[in-house]
Parts: sequence; structure tokens; C-alpha cells
Amino acid sequence: MQMVATVQALRVLLAAPRGAGKTIGLVPTMGSFHDGHLSLMRASRERDDVVVVSLFVNPTQFGPGDDYLEYPRDLERDARMADEAGAHLLFAPPEDEMYPPGDATLVEVTGDLTDRLCGAFRPGHFRGVATVVAKLLGIVQPHRAYFGEKDYQQLMVVRRLVADLHLPVEIVGVATVREPDGLAMSSRNRYLSPPEREAATVLYRSLAQARELVRAGVREAGEVLARARETIVREPLVKLQYLEAADAGSLAPVERICGPTVLALAAYVGNTRLIDNVIVEG
Amino acid sequence: MQMVATVQALRVLLAAPRGAGKTIGLVPTMGSFHDGHLSLMRASRERDDVVVVSLFVNPTQFGPGDDYLEYPRDLERDARMADEAGAHLLFAPPEDEMYPPGDATLVEVTGDLTDRLCGAFRPGHFRGVATVVAKLLGIVQPHRAYFGEKDYQQLMVVRRLVADLHLPVEIVGVATVREPDGLAMSSRNRYLSPPEREAATVLYRSLAQARELVRAGVREAGEVLARARETIVREPLVKLQYLEAADAGSLAPVERICGPTVLALAAYVGNTRLIDNVIVEG
Repeated sequence: MQMVATVQALRVLLAAPRGAGKTIGLVPTMGSFHDGHLSLMRASRERDDVVVVSLFVNPTQFGPGDDYLEYPRDLERDARMADEAGAHLLFAPPEDEMYPPGDATLVEVTGDLTDRLCGAFRPGHFRGVATVVAKLLGIVQPHRAYFGEKDYQQLMVVRRLVADLHLPVEIVGVATVREPDGLAMSSRNRYLSPPEREAATVLYRSLAQARELVRAGVREAGEVLARARETIVREPLVKLQYLEAADAGSLAPVERICGPTVLALAAYVGNTRLIDNVIVEG
Repeated sequence: MQMVATVQALRVLLAAPRGAGKTIGLVPTMGSFHDGHLSLMRASRERDDVVVVSLFVNPTQFGPGDDYLEYPRDLERDARMADEAGAHLLFAPPEDEMYPPGDATLVEVTGDLTDRLCGAFRPGHFRGVATVVAKLLGIVQPHRAYFGEKDYQQLMVVRRLVADLHLPVEIVGVATVREPDGLAMSSRNRYLSPPEREAATVLYRSLAQARELVRAGVREAGEVLARARETIVREPLVKLQYLEAADAGSLAPVERICGPTVLALAAYVGNTRLIDNVIVEG
């Protein structure tokens, strides 16, 4: 695996395989790798001739109170892990490479896809995501790009962006990877104290319970969500930010669960904000 | 020359030459061709193996009071002219091909590049331009794209967009084409009555006069602009909207003309809004 820090160097390295008709996969990340990231890299390795992993802690998707400065960074460990997962290129640019002097361009997906769920609590977050993803797709010009379903709203925003800008890239969503007790893998899990780590299991437990209710025939979203909320509220270390049912495609609110529906939540466990979701079929 | 209306059909036609290493040029237009458009097509024909002309009257760059509905449309005539100018493909999509159902993505260049000059009088205009240009670059994936210097602010916005999103395309600016009496060619010139057409010559005359003053050594932008305004104000059919001096790269305001500076204006001639500019060197 080769590491590059500049757009120019990356383009030089990709010119030959691209010219030879090889397919290029992009796995955009903020580093601090766990098995979720590695499963994205392996998914690309299965499909693409060249696997490019980008590692950039994107400042524009963090809000003023967010953990941009504390966000875990360990390039050496990440490089080793990406190499072992089969990545060919690790693109880890400095900030002024992604946002060149005079940078002034914003990309924004508007409406239900970004107004609701996390978008309601993190103003500007998805604009930062859309902008940096557009830049990365411009830089790498991949045939496929891989995003985890754990960040479900982000995946939908990226799919919309790519459709609307007619970008010739296939967006591949990859299933959430979970710890043995069900907690969705996240770089932020390392912020959790042992009691918080234990308490955090209630998030997926409540979603799995909701999914069981739907499978058992309950169709009223309000009823399903209320039962899940009861479970979460019994965990004093967890403070729910939202738990909602949304159309799995448009993210519009859902009252009656008929088609593919995402049940998504965000919660603070101590000071750590975690998200999770499951897809249910009505 | 072949005409296509869908992204899919265009991609199919471009796949073979692209795969064979041919270069692709894009000339984005709103149709109603004049010699300015034809000079863009010829510039592409000189450099590129395949010349794609797009023709789309983009609704999102028109404001509520603008001439979207009246904007001249004559596809047959345009197709003949593009063919004669050497275009290989004319891409004339319907609106829902450019803005697919559920379209929600905006691209915006912020700051001096869009706040001032025309941007101050046409809120949202350059967001519409940036969004549709990003779409066209996504669809065609050209090696070069051609824009007229008559729309100087637009050219700068597009250059910024391409730099910030790291798009692998060269933006080529092409000199303004003028009528024998100096009036910059514009699709909107056909709105002018004969007396208005005569009066409109004051626009370039005032800019040429300003350029002479700078060449003669005048460096105070205020003085140069005041003299040009005196010329324009003597023409009763013309109502100046703005006349400003701006840094030719950043479009930041300029008080003393030292480096490359654009002198740009917009004016109503009767009910028709026209723009023009010249570049001067301090």
C-alpha cells in the first residue's frame, strides 16, 4: 500500500490503472479505523482493481460544540490496518489540499434528506459532508464509492448528491458492523467509560426490539417507537436525542409502516453522541 | 452532428471516443446562438477530438422577474449553426433530465465572487449557474469546457468551482465577440428596438474610454469609473445598474488599479438588461 498526501500525486498514481481500464474504488473515511471501515475496504477489494482509502478529518462537518479537535487520530495504526485489509492507496491530505486557498464552494442537499434526524440537531453537518464527498469524488473519480449503513442519513445524502450531479460513480452501502453485544462500531465508542460502554448496548437493543414488533405485525410507527423509547429511558446513562421512523428512500416521516422504513436514533451516552439504525419492512 | 436529449444516450455516444483516449470539449449554452457561441465551438474544435455543445435554458439561474419564459428558443436554427461550427454532439435535454425527480442538490460559490457585481442584483443567479455547470460537467466529464469572457463573473465562478471540487477539467475562457460597432454579442440583443440597439453602443464605448484612461496612466478607479459613467448617463435610453472595478482574479473591489482589473457593468437598455466588461492592466 502506498500513502499519498496530495491530489497531484494521487492522480499520477491512478493515471496508469485508469488508462488500462482498471476499476477504482473509493472508501472515504475520517480514520480511527475499526471493523466497520475494514468491511468497506474489503467490499471494495472484492469489486475493484484499485482500492483507494481516503483519510481526512473534515472540519466542515463538525459544529462549534463538536469533537473535531478530540476526534481520534492515529495515522500509523490506520495505515497498517488499511494495508492489511487490502487497500492499495491511502490518501491522507492536509486541510489546505482539500480546501485550497480561497476555497469558496459549498455543496448542499436540501429538504427532508438533511432537515430531519441528525440534520435537525447538527446544522451544517450534511453540507460539510456533501461538500467533502463531492471533492473526494472529484479528486479520485472512482467507479464505486463505499459508505457504511450505520451513517444511514449520510448514505442517502450521498446517493442524492450523486444522482443530482449525474456523477458516474456507483454508491455502495455496506451493512453496519456490530460488536458481539450489538453496539454499532464507531470511532467514538472509544470515548466511552466502562459503565457507559455497557449502557450503550441499550441503543441497538431498543432498535432490535422495535424491529421485532414490526415483524410481529405492529404497523403504527408511534407505538413501535414508544416501546423502544421506554427501553432506552430505563438506562440512566443514556439521553435520547431522537428516535424516528422515516421512509428508507426519502427520509420523509412515516406514521404507518408499509414499505421499507428506517428506524433511526441518536443518543448521548455520557458526553458521547452515538447513532444507530435498523431497516424494517412493513 | 448528432442530437441527444438524455444523459444515458450521451454517455453511450461518448464511451467509445473516451475509451480510445480522445479528448472531449464541452460548450455549455442556453441556445439562441450568435457568433460568441460559435467562437466557443470553434475554440473547442481546434483543441478537442469531440465537441459537445449543451443547450439548456436553465430555470434555476433566472430570478422571479427575469426573462426565463421569453428567452429566445430556436432548436432547429441552433442545431444547424452548431453543425456548421463543427460540433459533433448537441445535447439538448428536457428539464427533468437535468433536474431529476426529487432533485435537491445545490452547488454554491460564496463570497466576493458571487456577492458583488451581477451577484448583488441577481440573488441566486450564480447558485443556479454553479449547480447546472456542476451537473453538465458530471454528465459530460469533458477534458475542457469553454466559457465566454463576456460573462466574466460567471467564468470566475466556474473556475473557482472547478478548483474547489478538484474537477479534472480545464476551463477555457474565450474572448468576447463584438458587433462591428463594439456591442458585445448577446442572445438578448434581439430584444432591442432599433433606437435601443443604437443606444446600447454606449456600453462598450464607455468601457473602451475607461481602458484608454488607464492606458494613459490614470490609476484611481473612482476617477476612471466616474468618467465612464458620465458617458453613459448622456444616453437617455440606458439606465446603468452598476459599473465597478474589481480584481480580475478574486473580484474583490479595487480602488487603485495596479494589477489585472476587470471593469464590469450591467445596464438596462429599455427593458433589456445587458452586461459587458473589459480587462485593464495597471
